[in-house]
Amino acid sequence: MKRKLETCLSPALYEADLHSGSVVVVIDILRASSAICTAFANGAVSVIPVAEVQEARDYKKQGYLVAAERDGYVLDFADFGNSPFNFTHEKVSGKTIVYSTTNGTGIIKIASPANAIAIGSFLNISALTEGIISQEKDIVLFCAGWKNRFNLEDTVCAGAIAERLMSSSLYSTICDSTNAALDLWSLAKNDLSGYIEKAAQRSRLRDKGLDDCISFCLTSDFTKKIPVIKNGILVDNIL
Amino acid sequence: MKRKLETCLSPALYEADLHSGSVVVVIDILRASSAICTAFANGAVSVIPVAEVQEARDYKKQGYLVAAERDGYVLDFADFGNSPFNFTHEKVSGKTIVYSTTNGTGIIKIASPANAIAIGSFLNISALTEGIISQEKDIVLFCAGWKNRFNLEDTVCAGAIAERLMSSSLYSTICDSTNAALDLWSLAKNDLSGYIEKAAQRSRLRDKGLDDCISFCLTSDFTKKIPVIKNGILVDNIL
Repeated sequence: MKRKLETCLSPALYEADLHSGSVVVVIDILRASSAICTAFANGAVSVIPVAEVQEARDYKKQGYLVAAERDGYVLDFADFGNSPFNFTHEKVSGKTIVYSTTNGTGIIKIASPANAIAIGSFLNISALTEGIISQEKDIVLFCAGWKNRFNLEDTVCAGAIAERLMSSSLYSTICDSTNAALDLWSLAKNDLSGYIEKAAQRSRLRDKGLDDCISFCLTSDFTKKIPVIKNGILVDNIL
Repeated sequence: MKRKLETCLSPALYEADLHSGSVVVVIDILRASSAICTAFANGAVSVIPVAEVQEARDYKKQGYLVAAERDGYVLDFADFGNSPFNFTHEKVSGKTIVYSTTNGTGIIKIASPANAIAIGSFLNISALTEGIISQEKDIVLFCAGWKNRFNLEDTVCAGAIAERLMSSSLYSTICDSTNAALDLWSLAKNDLSGYIEKAAQRSRLRDKGLDDCISFCLTSDFTKKIPVIKNGILVDNIL
């Protein structure tokens, strides 16, 4: 019997009760999941995701390194925002980072009843797919979207991951969202940067001057790290 | 200034407050919106959409013709379910029909703050697009999905409508859902029946022996009727 592969296109569509036995992959490529993968690639020890601004502020008072943004803008008390380029080796190596973003960290909480939660992006796509295949569980690809809306960039990344999982012949899907993601990926894959030009988040980041990291976020296999949640905290590679 | 075109991929994603000035097109092609278009094509005077089973039962007691189903099955007290083939000229001409389905009628209620609500399907696609273009309003293509989930067939129909609207040059879109619908339609359009084979609802209807109407539901321009909501009731063509 094949394992099930499902995709959720927005937090507003997530059915936590159905996925308690699954490995859930959280995808928020512009920019939270790409930033988290970069942090671990550059030697971060752990990342504490927090949904609320006040919680991030309290951690800062305790001396933590804090990354926090809303709608792309760095919060005043934070050390930096969520461009992957902030999470340099110099800043994060050996450190625990507290991290709060508009979408990405909130959905980790929504997914928390799952068997396991991993962070997915193009930056770790090969390691991630090998890692989750080794788990012998059903998989849910959970797109963060934008303020509970569907978005193209996370859906296309879900399609890229789904393509690799389906090619293993270990999974089956009767999920329309997975089939849509696979189809959109088939249209995007030969010119991913060109395809993402039409994404609303592409325009938002351009308008705010925050789009320098986009081609980096669309790069496959920058790292072999698989950030996973253990006891509410993101750690490295022990899915 | 161009009019806005947006698409909502599931009732769980609908933002009623944002769309109070828009024309909303409700799309539930397998099978409610196709059945409603067929009813008007065959001479129905009006259709009263009701969300609750008990309400449909009460109308039946009052002598109304009642179409009511849940998960594809006809409710015991109803005259028939929601295959478009039930809504024949003999049965519906000159009649008011009370209609309650799993998805389709519920979302009419969700959309009710809109400026106008029309019923869309492939069966009335040309008349519908001409009708809504004449309204000079922003448009929301509202896919019924299935039990709050995304589905392929309504999304592809939204893409077909969006393609026609965008080719008028009167609309612009920065909506990722619209772009996804347009892209999925571009993959589906040359073999629509073949594409819909992978839709979960295609399998559900086959498993229940209810798939005889699918190729009909994928047929363009069976009718020029545009069912629209006036005072909570569906009537013909006075958008």
